[in-house]
This record gives sequence, C-alpha cells and structure tokens, in this order.
Amino acid sequence: MAERSFLSDILRRVAGGGWRGGRGDDNRDVVDLCRDLLSDRGEMSGLVRAQNILDRLDGLGEDEKRDFFQRVAKEFSVDQEALQAAIEGWSPGDTDAARAIHFAAEPKSQELIRRLNRVPGATARLVGLRAALLKSLRELPELGGLDADFRHLFASWFSRGFLEIRRIDWSTPADILEKIIVYEAVHEIEGWDDLRQRVGDPDRRLFAFFHPAMPSEPLIFVEVALTEKIPGSIAPILSAFSERIPPDAASVAVFYSISNCQKGLRGISFGNFLIKQVVAELQRELPNLKQFVTLSPVPGLRSWATGAMQGDEPLLDAATRETLSALEADDRPAPEVAVRLAARYLTRARRSSGTAHDPVAHFHLGNGAILHKVHAEADFGSRGVANSWGVMVNYLYDGPKIEARHQAYATAQKVAASSEVRGLAKN
Amino acid sequence: MAERSFLSDILRRVAGGGWRGGRGDDNRDVVDLCRDLLSDRGEMSGLVRAQNILDRLDGLGEDEKRDFFQRVAKEFSVDQEALQAAIEGWSPGDTDAARAIHFAAEPKSQELIRRLNRVPGATARLVGLRAALLKSLRELPELGGLDADFRHLFASWFSRGFLEIRRIDWSTPADILEKIIVYEAVHEIEGWDDLRQRVGDPDRRLFAFFHPAMPSEPLIFVEVALTEKIPGSIAPILSAFSERIPPDAASVAVFYSISNCQKGLRGISFGNFLIKQVVAELQRELPNLKQFVTLSPVPGLRSWATGAMQGDEPLLDAATRETLSALEADDRPAPEVAVRLAARYLTRARRSSGTAHDPVAHFHLGNGAILHKVHAEADFGSRGVANSWGVMVNYLYDGPKIEARHQAYATAQKVAASSEVRGLAKN
Amino acid sequence: MAERSFLSDILRRVAGGGWRGGRGDDNRDVVDLCRDLLSDRGEMSGLVRAQNILDRLDGLGEDEKRDFFQRVAKEFSVDQEALQAAIEGWSPGDTDAARAIHFAAEPKSQELIRRLNRVPGATARLVGLRAALLKSLRELPELGGLDADFRHLFASWFSRGFLEIRRIDWSTPADILEKIIVYEAVHEIEGWDDLRQRVGDPDRRLFAFFHPAMPSEPLIFVEVALTEKIPGSIAPILSAFSERIPPDAASVAVFYSISNCQKGLRGISFGNFLIKQVVAELQRELPNLKQFVTLSPVPGLRSWATGAMQGDEPLLDAATRETLSALEADDRPAPEVAVRLAARYLTRARRSSGTAHDPVAHFHLGNGAILHKVHAEADFGSRGVANSWGVMVNYLYDGPKIEARHQAYATAQKVAASSEVRGLAKN
Amino acid sequence: MAERSFLSDILRRVAGGGWRGGRGDDNRDVVDLCRDLLSDRGEMSGLVRAQNILDRLDGLGEDEKRDFFQRVAKEFSVDQEALQAAIEGWSPGDTDAARAIHFAAEPKSQELIRRLNRVPGATARLVGLRAALLKSLRELPELGGLDADFRHLFASWFSRGFLEIRRIDWSTPADILEKIIVYEAVHEIEGWDDLRQRVGDPDRRLFAFFHPAMPSEPLIFVEVALTEKIPGSIAPILSAFSERIPPDAASVAVFYSISNCQKGLRGISFGNFLIKQVVAELQRELPNLKQFVTLSPVPGLRSWATGAMQGDEPLLDAATRETLSALEADDRPAPEVAVRLAARYLTRARRSSGTAHDPVAHFHLGNGAILHKVHAEADFGSRGVANSWGVMVNYLYDGPKIEARHQAYATAQKVAASSEVRGLAKN
Repeated sequence: MAERSFLSDILRRVAGGGWRGGRGDDNRDVVDLCRDLLSDRGEMSGLVRAQNILDRLDGLGEDEKRDFFQRVAKEFSVDQEALQAAIEGWSPGDTDAARAIHFAAEPKSQELIRRLNRVPGATARLVGLRAALLKSLRELPELGGLDADFRHLFASWFSRGFLEIRRIDWSTPADILEKIIVYEAVHEIEGWDDLRQRVGDPDRRLFAFFHPAMPSEPLIFVEVALTEKIPGSIAPILSAFSERIPPDAASVAVFYSISNCQKGLRGISFGNFLIKQVVAELQRELPNLKQFVTLSPVPGLRSWATGAMQGDEPLLDAATRETLSALEADDRPAPEVAVRLAARYLTRARRSSGTAHDPVAHFHLGNGAILHKVHAEADFGSRGVANSWGVMVNYLYDGPKIEARHQAYATAQKVAASSEVRGLAKN
Repeated sequence: MAERSFLSDILRRVAGGGWRGGRGDDNRDVVDLCRDLLSDRGEMSGLVRAQNILDRLDGLGEDEKRDFFQRVAKEFSVDQEALQAAIEGWSPGDTDAARAIHFAAEPKSQELIRRLNRVPGATARLVGLRAALLKSLRELPELGGLDADFRHLFASWFSRGFLEIRRIDWSTPADILEKIIVYEAVHEIEGWDDLRQRVGDPDRRLFAFFHPAMPSEPLIFVEVALTEKIPGSIAPILSAFSERIPPDAASVAVFYSISNCQKGLRGISFGNFLIKQVVAELQRELPNLKQFVTLSPVPGLRSWATGAMQGDEPLLDAATRETLSALEADDRPAPEVAVRLAARYLTRARRSSGTAHDPVAHFHLGNGAILHKVHAEADFGSRGVANSWGVMVNYLYDGPKIEARHQAYATAQKVAASSEVRGLAKN
Repeated sequence: MAERSFLSDILRRVAGGGWRGGRGDDNRDVVDLCRDLLSDRGEMSGLVRAQNILDRLDGLGEDEKRDFFQRVAKEFSVDQEALQAAIEGWSPGDTDAARAIHFAAEPKSQELIRRLNRVPGATARLVGLRAALLKSLRELPELGGLDADFRHLFASWFSRGFLEIRRIDWSTPADILEKIIVYEAVHEIEGWDDLRQRVGDPDRRLFAFFHPAMPSEPLIFVEVALTEKIPGSIAPILSAFSERIPPDAASVAVFYSISNCQKGLRGISFGNFLIKQVVAELQRELPNLKQFVTLSPVPGLRSWATGAMQGDEPLLDAATRETLSALEADDRPAPEVAVRLAARYLTRARRSSGTAHDPVAHFHLGNGAILHKVHAEADFGSRGVANSWGVMVNYLYDGPKIEARHQAYATAQKVAASSEVRGLAKN
Repeated sequence: MAERSFLSDILRRVAGGGWRGGRGDDNRDVVDLCRDLLSDRGEMSGLVRAQNILDRLDGLGEDEKRDFFQRVAKEFSVDQEALQAAIEGWSPGDTDAARAIHFAAEPKSQELIRRLNRVPGATARLVGLRAALLKSLRELPELGGLDADFRHLFASWFSRGFLEIRRIDWSTPADILEKIIVYEAVHEIEGWDDLRQRVGDPDRRLFAFFHPAMPSEPLIFVEVALTEKIPGSIAPILSAFSERIPPDAASVAVFYSISNCQKGLRGISFGNFLIKQVVAELQRELPNLKQFVTLSPVPGLRSWATGAMQGDEPLLDAATRETLSALEADDRPAPEVAVRLAARYLTRARRSSGTAHDPVAHFHLGNGAILHKVHAEADFGSRGVANSWGVMVNYLYDGPKIEARHQAYATAQKVAASSEVRGLAKN
C-alpha cells in the first residue's frame, strides 16, 4: 500500500488542492522555502513544502547546488543568541543546563534535514544530496560543518540495527542487479552475462546491505567465490571459462570484491559487519567451508615505493632500491622481489597515526583479519598493475581469533601476519 | 534472511566463541557494561556487549530500572570539561565553534542509546525502555534530561518518511491482530469475534502505521466504519447485531477510534498523518465516499464543568448552573442541556495557552477538522458517561478546507465549528 | 494482481456489459445453462456462464442440489451414439481406435466440471460441490458415476506435484488459523488461546498442505509436539499447563493429530506425503530429533470387541471374554487387559481384504510405520473412552525401514510391531 | 519452505537411504522403470522412481527420446483385454457401463504422465517432454495418440482458473526477464537495453500468464505501447529514440506483440483470455485509455498472393495481377496497391473451413476484434517484408461489441471490418 501512497497522490485526493503549502512555491527561492519549512506548524503543509524543496533541488545544476549549500551553511547555522543565552544559564557541573546548551547549539540545518526526511522516499534523495555536498566540499572547506550534520544524522539512521542483509542472485529484481553492475568498484562487471555468472553460478555468492527506506538501493555488497583452495590470482575467478564446482565441494570462501555503493554515505561504515554476517550466512548454508579469506589488492604499494625511493626509507634495502631504480616504465620487478617488498610494506609501513599504510590492509586488519599470503602476478588488470605491479594478498578471517586480533590492532597497531608473510617481510 | 541472522547465531557460527565482548559480562554491573560499550572500538564486540546490556535490562524489575536510569542520567551526562573547552573556543558569530559546542555538549546518553540500537531488533526494546523511563519520571523529574535524549532520537528514527501504512484485516497475521486487541484504548475489543467484525466486516476498515525495524508492532491505528449517514452514537457501530452494508453503498467514512500503541513513543506524533493518509486510501478505494468524519468522545467535558461550577466561569449561565447542581450522582442532564453545554465547552473553553480545553478537540482542530455536530446520549459506556454524560461529537475533515482551518487554529486558535454547533454554543 | 481481477470486474470494465453470456441467465434453468456451457464456443462468454452457474449452485438448498446432481448424472452422461460408433470402429489390438473409445466414452460431466473450473477461484467451489454430492450419494447410489468423475479430475488437479507445504504458526493469517480451529477433527481446539499454544508454543509445530488455487484453504494438516520422551497419554500434550521445553532440548517429535480438511476431497490421499515431508522438515530444523512417532487413537477397538463377543472370535480368550462380559456400561477393563486386547486387535484382527481392521492402524502401517507401544488410560476424552476405553498407541516412523515395512504390508499384509507389542499380543 | 523440500533432500534426511525405489534404477531401462512406476504401490517409492525417470529422460538425446516415445506409445496403450471385457458388459443406454468403458479404455500413458507429475517441479519438465514429442511427431504420426494424452491432461492442468496474470517490469526477477528475451517471437528483443525499455519505459507494459507449478516460466505474454494515436507502423514503437509520453497522456493501448512461450503447450489456448484481462487491467490503471488495438502482421498475405497468381483467384483483379507480375524479387507493390490487396485478402480470403485465411486475422476475429485499419510500409523488418511487403494492420477490441463479433465469426464466419477497410476491399 505504501508505495502507491505518494504524497502528491494524497494531496490530489484529499485536498482537491487543499493543502496550500505548495501553491506558489514554484517561483520562490529554494532557501526561502527551507526557511518556511523550519517555521511551518502544519505537518501536512510542511510535508508538501519538503517535497517541493526536494524536487527543486533535484533540478539544480552542480553550481547551483554549491550555492545552495553555501547559503544553507550560513543561514541555517546555530542560533547564536539562543546559544549565548544557554551558555549564560550554565555553570560547570549543571547537567541540565549543559543539555540545554546542546539543544540550543544544534545547527538549524540538522532540523532542516530531518524535516526533509519526513517525505516518503526522501532518504535516498538526501543521500544523493550529500554526495553533491561532498563534491562541493573539496573546494569549499567551509561546508565541513554542514557535512558534519549530514554525517551525524546518517550515522543514526543507518544504524546496523536498521539494516537488512540480502543475498543477490539471478532471481533478484533487475533494477537492483543493474545497480550492482554500476556500483562494482573493484573488478568491473562487463554487462549482464558477466553479472549472471557472478550472482548465478553455483559457486558464486553476492550479499548486500539494504536500508528499509531505500529498498532498491544496495548500500554495500561483497562478492564471494567458493573454491577448493585459497586462490593466488584474480583472473580465474573472473573468467567465464573457469570450471565451476558444486558449492558443497568448496572448502574456501573467497571475498574477492567489496564495493561501497553510496557516495553520500561516506564515513558511515558497513563493511565490517557485512563480512562477518556473510561468514555466518555461508557457514550456515555450507558447513563444509573451512576458510574465509579475501583476495585483495594492495593499492598503496607502488606509490609508497615511489615515494620511499626518494628518501632513505629503511624498509627499502640496497638490493631492492637497485632493482626498482632499474625498472623501465612498464616493467615489473621479479615476482620474488615484488612479494618481499609487498610483505614488508604491508606489515611495516605505517601512517603517522601508526596504522597500516595501505588502506585495504588497514580495513581488514582493523576487522580482525590476519595477512595470510602475498602473491605476485596475481592481477593483470590495468589498475592492479598500476597500483601494485599486480601483487594481491589474502587476508584470512579466522573466527575464534578475530576479536583478539582486532583488539591488538585497534589498541596497539599490531599487524597480524602469517609466519610465511613475516618471513618474507624480514630484511 | 535477516530474521535468522540473530547476533547470537552469528557469534556462535563465526566465532566459535571468539568475540569475547560478552564473556564475563554476566557478573558485571550493567552500568559498567554501558561504560565499556561507549569506549568499545571493536564493532562486533560492541554489538555483543550492546546485546548483553539489553538482555540484562529486560531482566530488571521496576525499581532496578529506576536505579539504572538514575545512574545513567548522572554518569552519561555531558562531558563538562569538553564543554568548557568548547565554550572557551567560541566567540559569538563563530558558527564552526558553535557547532563544536553542540557536539561537545551532546550527552553521552545519546551515543549510548544509538549504540544499543545497533543490535538487530533493538529499536522495539528501546521503546519499551523509554516506557519504563516515563514511569520512573513521574516520581523523579531529574530523569527529564535522559528522557529528552530518547525523545530526540526517536523523533529522528520514527520520521514519517520511514513509516509504512498497512491495512489490517482478517488475513493479517494473528500476532499482529492480537496486539490490536491489546492496544485498543478507546472502545475495548472483546476478544477475537469482536476483532473479526472490526477488521473483517465489509463496511469496516482498520489502518496502522508500522516502522520497518518493528514489523510486528503497530505504532498507531485507526478504526473506520463505512456508513450511509453520519452516526450520532457509538453503540450501533460496535454492535455485532447491526446490519452491514456493502462498502460501495457507503457515503460516509467514520473514524471511530484512534489508538496510540507504544507508550514509549509518547510525544512522537503520528495521528495527524495517519488520518489524512487513510482518507486518501479510502478515496482511492471507494470513490463513492463523500464525507470523512470522526465519532469522538469529549473527555474533558464533565471535569471541566465540575471545576467551572466552583468558580464564576461565564460559560455556565444561571440556568445551566441550576440544572447541574440539581443532578444526583448518576443523573445526566437533559439531552438539550448536555448538547448546549458541550457545544459551548468545545468552542469556547480554552487552556491558558489559548488552545481548546478538550484534548480530543485540540487534536482534531489542530489537524484542520471542523466541529460538525454534538450528540447527547451517544455513548453509554462507563467511561463515556463518566467523562461527558455520554456526549459525543463529529469532527469533519473537509479536504479543501483542512489546511486553512489548521492554519487558523495553529496561528490564531480559531475553532472551526458548523453553524449548528455555533448556534448551540451561544448563551 | 490476480486477486483483484475477478471476472465480474473484467466484464464490467471491458465490456460495459458486452459479454452477453450472462444476460438473461438469471431466469433460466441451471441445467440448461450447463448445456449451453458445453456448447459455448466463445471463451469469455463461456467463462461468464460458468460463473453464473457456480453462483446459482451456491444458492441452492440441499434438496435442490440433489435434484441438480440427478439431472446432471442423467443428462451429462456418456454420448451413447458416439460410443457405439467408436466401438464399431474398433477391433482388438487397434490402439488408436481404443483411445478413440476412451475419448468417446468420456462422460460429458467431466468436461462440464473442467469448464466450470476455468473460473478463477472455482476449484474450492467445486470441492464444496462434491462435498454436497457425497452427501446426496448416501441415499442415491446412482450418483456414484458422477462422483467418479469428480474424483478422477480432483486426483489429477490435486497431484502431489502441485501442492505446497507450509508451516502454520502464530504469524499465519487469521483467516487460515480460523479454519484450523474448524477443521481439527481429532482433538478439538477450544478457541484462540488453545490454538495459540498449538501453533505458537516453542515445542509445538503445525504443518499443512495447500493447493495454489485455494491459497487460504488447508487441505490436510498435522500437529506435532516436541518432547523428551515418547508420550503415553494425550492430556499433557493438550494441556495449557504442561511445561514447555526449548525445541532443541527435544529428541522426539510426536504427531498427535492429523486432520483432513476438505470433505469434497474424500478419496484423494495426502497424509502419507505430509507425514514424511514434515519428518524431513523437522530433521532439517532440529537435528537433535531422534524419533518420530504418533500418538494415535484405536477407533475400531471397542466396536470390534463387542462384535467379537457375539461370535467365537479366537482372539478373545476365555479370560478376556469373562472380563469383558462383566463390565458395566461405564466401566473400563483393567489396564493390563485393555493393553493386551488392543495389541492383539491391532496386530491380528483383519478385514476380509486382509488389511488391518483398525483404520488408523491401516493408515500408518500402510505408510511404513511400526506399531511401537500400546498405552491404557491414555485418553479420557469421551470419544477416546467410547471407542477404545482410552487406549492409545504409538506408531514409529523409522526412516531406513519405512520403505521395506510399507512393501511388506502392501504386498503381504505384514503388520510391523515391536517385540513388546508382539509379546502383549500373544494369547 | 516448499522450494527447499526437494525430494532428494527428503529422502536423504528421512530415509538415510531408506526408500529403495531409487537404488539400482540407474542401470535399468527407462521404460522398465515406467512399468514399475505404474505398478508401484508405495507412494514415496513411486515418487522417487518418478524422479529418477524424469532425470533419465533429461539426459536422453533426440533420437533416444524418439525411441522412448515409440515404446511408450506401444507399451502404455489401452489395456485391450480390460476394454474388451468392459465392452461386453455394456449395452446401449447403460450409462454406468459406458463410464466403465471410459475408464477401462484410458491409455496407461495418461496414468504414467499423472504419476510423473507428482514430483515437485515435474510439470515444467513434462511440458518440455511434450515439446520433444511434438518434434518426433512430425516424422512419426503414430505418436499422435500419445500426444493426445499429453494435450488432454495439459488442458485440464492449465485451466484458466489455475493461471495468474502478472505485470512484468524492470523490478521483475532477472531469470524471468531473461526468458522474455528468449521467448519473444514477433519482434526480437535485442538484449537487456532493449528489454528495459519494453518493460520499464513509462508508456510500455508487458503482461504474462503463469502457472503456479512453473512460477518462473511465462506461458504467454503480450507487449503493450501506450500512445496518443493508433500507430501505423512498428518502427517508432520499437525504437529506443522515440519520444516517451507519460501514461496518463495516452488514449490508446497498442498490443504490438503476443508470444506463446512453451512449445510443449501447443494447442492449449491462452491468448484470448490474456488480451481481455490485460484490457481490464489497463482500464483500471489508466481510465484515460479510450481504444485498445493491435498492431499486427499479416503473415499469410504474400504466400497467398503468390499462390493466387497461379490460379484464377477472383480476388485478384486484372490490374493487381499485372502489378504483381511486374514486381522484381525485392520490389514492393505501391502502397495503395498493397493496402487494397491486404484488405481484400483479410476480409475475403478463406480456408476450406470457411475461417479467415490469415492466421493472425483468424485469432483476433475469433476473439471478437474488428479489422480496423490497414497500413502499407509499416514494417521494414525482414520477416515483415518477406511475408507481407511490410503491410501491418490494426485490430480493434471494442468492449461492448466484442461478444457479438466473436459470435458472428464463430457461428457464421462473419469478418468484422471498419467501413474504411471494407471500402478498400471492394474490387
């Protein structure tokens, strides 16, 4: 029933044009409409106005949106007088007064976003709006406050407790499958035939998180291959010509691609939960599975090495330096060199915060995985070669140890690595 | 899939006991667990701890819950040092610093509630928790701040845009129907046979709002009778022996009962939207419907009159005073007296805020309805007699005028009443 | 979409009264309408006429229906001329001509029933019609041929491959649950509270078969209790006050009630499949279950014994005869006597066809079960006492042996019984 | 639940290998298995055997299937002795004995097909089997009897009352959409992008019939374009570049393609019902629609004309003969000639049975449509040019007159045509 009950339909039917929140809005400035929305006392008229605003925003070009964000950031900021008054009413230790400051200091933009979200279907549009805001933010850091408001509200609305996990397969509605094609960010899906094997072949799985207010929009998804052994390169997994195995012949589940779908949800993390929930789902369905690993890129390797060559980075020993400096543009170091270098990079290169330098490593180590194995010549895709000379790695999720590893990395930046990898990483 | 993926199941499967967020929690103080939850950095371990806390809270008695709320209110308040620092960094007009104050002044209890809500199924439990909090609040006004945090988050989570409307009928799952029986607050449902006619008879409808995170829990529902004429008493509507009409023979839809289901959602308003959406649904289904009215009680009439008798309330003229003072305990004033008094009360008696004195009148007038007709001897139920000598009224929702009436009441407390009612209300 | 597309709606919309199959049908003899239906060449007009016929039949009283059946049996019989001609065209061994006889000899009533079944929703109405036919058949054996036509078509339409099994629980739609209450034929369900525990308690299950053309009408259902031990009496299972156990603490699944729902499907057997499919479902859900047994009545015991007392039935030894003849009307034989007599009856009393005398025994033995145990004082319900002095028995479904036992009973009438029961059955 | 309850799963779980219907079947002749299936008394073992047979048949090549059909036709024919006995027991007028002949003369192949159909999911496989049978039948007319058995049972199983209509759109599961691409028989769908516009564009609709035992297999579907005017050529409808209109701006619904999906259901007619039900659906959704027309090919035109040139067909006047005989291989007659010739052909050329010569004309006229308009140069597809020099026509479904036209055509072969077409058709 819900889907048919669009607001416009309600209005047309009940009101015969009665709710006049909308009348005349068409020619008015959209920021004026926002101001009215915040002062609206009629819930129905507010709903209509909110819908009008969303419709208007959909029609704005990039520059107009940037202007809109700037004006909103300025005009729908904190009410300074109210804040001043609240501060004056407070003395340290007065918790009620402190809470009063909190509410007084709430930027009006938060209430604006909440009111826009009352419109059925608004959530996805607000996520899209934040994607545009993030784009504007690159040039206009003063929009950071407004973005913080979005992020704060989204973190609350996209709470893990509200999400549902769904398996995507060949009987999934086409409109959702189409989005999987679009959103795949790691190993591009080349049309419907490629998609079909990734979701429909007996030894493939794809799981995604959804939010009930955006039922056709995946938030994040993970692609899984069921295999007999831990794989050392990506090509056989992606190929249409590899042999398939029956799922109950598999002993390994390989997470070979994780894609965040919604740019507007940047900073709201789901991947952590998704992987672990998929592990649980797969264990339930296929008790024969013994190992849960990723087949992951090392996106930071080559740029880090290039930078390191220019300094006196101790992780680069003399032999490695020599090898690298002898490489022509399209050359790759010999496999054994690439593997040693990657192992060293992943286990020992750090950001100033102390965390792993490589972002993918940081993600999986932070989730409690262990760096299990490093493979040279594992990815001949252009991105893989450009980023890491084709090196890929397996991170292993080992149930009973996940939490301890997560804690060790979170609190002491301890990088878990197999003895093989640790051996490779030694100078 | 989601429903089977309970957290405990995930843990059992993946971890083989690996996430130790839970281990040992059983013997620890639940407020200590909350403190840990706020400092937890592992998302999975945090999830387990959150679930443990919710389980523990379920097991607490009323007194223990009250203690818990008091301790939470005290310990998870605003971080005073951070607030002090933020205030020091602020000067009037500095919007970024103002926003920083807002975030610094956020009571930790808000984050605590958000983290508890990450557990699948937690939302309903948090709503239940607030119901307990509201009970404690009666004696302990210092819990008001904590309650404000709940209300603030619930208003965001139970945004109209997230709700779905569903028709409840005789093919609705029994577990939901059972809740309708329990939650009906106006005209009690006397078991499954009574329920069956209210949801299953051809000239009856029942609609409810649901939140996707609480799919078996109605939030609010409205009961509708389809009739040929605007009814003047409730008995024929509730009776099992009244004649039924085919729905397309009806020209009037009567909203004869609206029930809020969740005590823990007090202050979060849905009724306004629900009525208007149901009007739209019914118009779509049954184009023959011409009028949308309520058959409503006047809960404030008799207690107002009793109070008014003790003062010199000008709305009570001498004749009325005489009549009322002559009434024995179980007497009712003559119908014409009751009707005139009710009309006067509803159109003219006000709260100090200027709004209608009667809460039901305030609700419907605030929604844009007009007071259409007053009926004596309309409700012989004990509550109806006790509250209003059995007087009931019809509020009429007249599509094209709803918004204007809502505005007139919202801004100028103008009570819309039919000429008949206005005539009755004259001294 | 389907459910809204009722025929009448199609007609009203498309035709504006265009399909005149229906016009004027109201005053015509319903058998005339049937005749027209068989000669109708327009599919839409035939559909309308079929619907008119079904509507008319719904309105007939019992006597009128009986008349209708008699006329149909007579007038829509085999076309004798066509049959004669087909026979003349045949000589032994001519398979095409033999098939031609088959089609020529098809009673027109079969085509009539098939054409009535084209109306959406007709199947359930035809099942109801056969229920009325079976009633008339008791007095009018000449309707047996018409009944054979119904049974023949129903056997084809209600093929196992078309059925679906569903678990019925407390989230099942109320209209279906209501039918479970009505259809329970073994141990009456005393209202919604009783139902709730039978479908909703953690150690109870209820499964039913449905046909897609009758989605709200169960065909047959079985009730299951999950227990720690094989039960010896029915009262603890039915009682609201018995302790419940968590399902994974159970090691026995007890099938304590099987009810056929549709009188009009008499002779179409489902129970066999249902039990075995439920066993499979339960094993999948609860691997801890070790034994699958029934707790069954012995409906034929007492009437058999009464008859046997009048002859020289060798299964009644002298001592038993003495005991039975000494019984007063409301007396029961001592438990040890009842048990021995029942064991003897169930294992050795036969019908002239050689099958077990007791119909419930015949059903379960025919399905491959073994008679596991006999209990006296197991059912104090009035029916149980009247039929078998309260004796009940367990039949055990022992997976790997089911097929062999089924074969042994089906081909050689061999009754499988445990050594305990065999011991009891000895003279 | 149903889908998981595969037979093999049941067996594995319950039986631990207990039902031995299957053991050893692998090496046996499949016709022997069929013989056993017919004599099987155990329902479960019969089910297993039936599944084994279906699996074996899936694995047969075309020749092996043909052999199988021949052997089945011979061995599972009518029981001649039983038939002889039944005939001897009959005398003209004895209806019970006649019915006995009917059942005695039932070919065993019918019971074989019914028993195979008990396996969940068997129906689609049997439909596939008949498709193979129809192929064999071309060379082996002696298989006609066996085919009659299939057709007889399918007509009963695929009764209109069992079917459901579904709208297919872009949120339909991909596995069903993929079949739409494969089954489109009139205007080929060129991949997913083409499909997307046919099901997803606002002014396009696609409806299909399904049978509940084959939920992912469309039986027949119709494609609809919503337009402002009756279209005179197919290209704008199929083109991705045509302008789209909002559905409520349309006044015409154009049925531009109807495809039967299942070769194995040949002779079981659905199209008639489908069109009329879709008209009803569209009228309900879009009250603005005023006309329901087809845009149909004239597949018989050119071959008829070629044949007619060789005789003295009176519908070919001298001028037309001259024109046609002057045409080069790839030429088309001038539009006005083509149009007149098509009008004459469609309204006046008949089969020996008296029905319209053109099969598409026969279909729509038989459904009660009127031949509304003839268009030259309407279809430049290779098939359209080859069959009818690109001529297409509109048949109009005019609600209130459908039934009368259907009757006039069905009983008197009267071809309904607009005055314009009738004018064109004159010599």
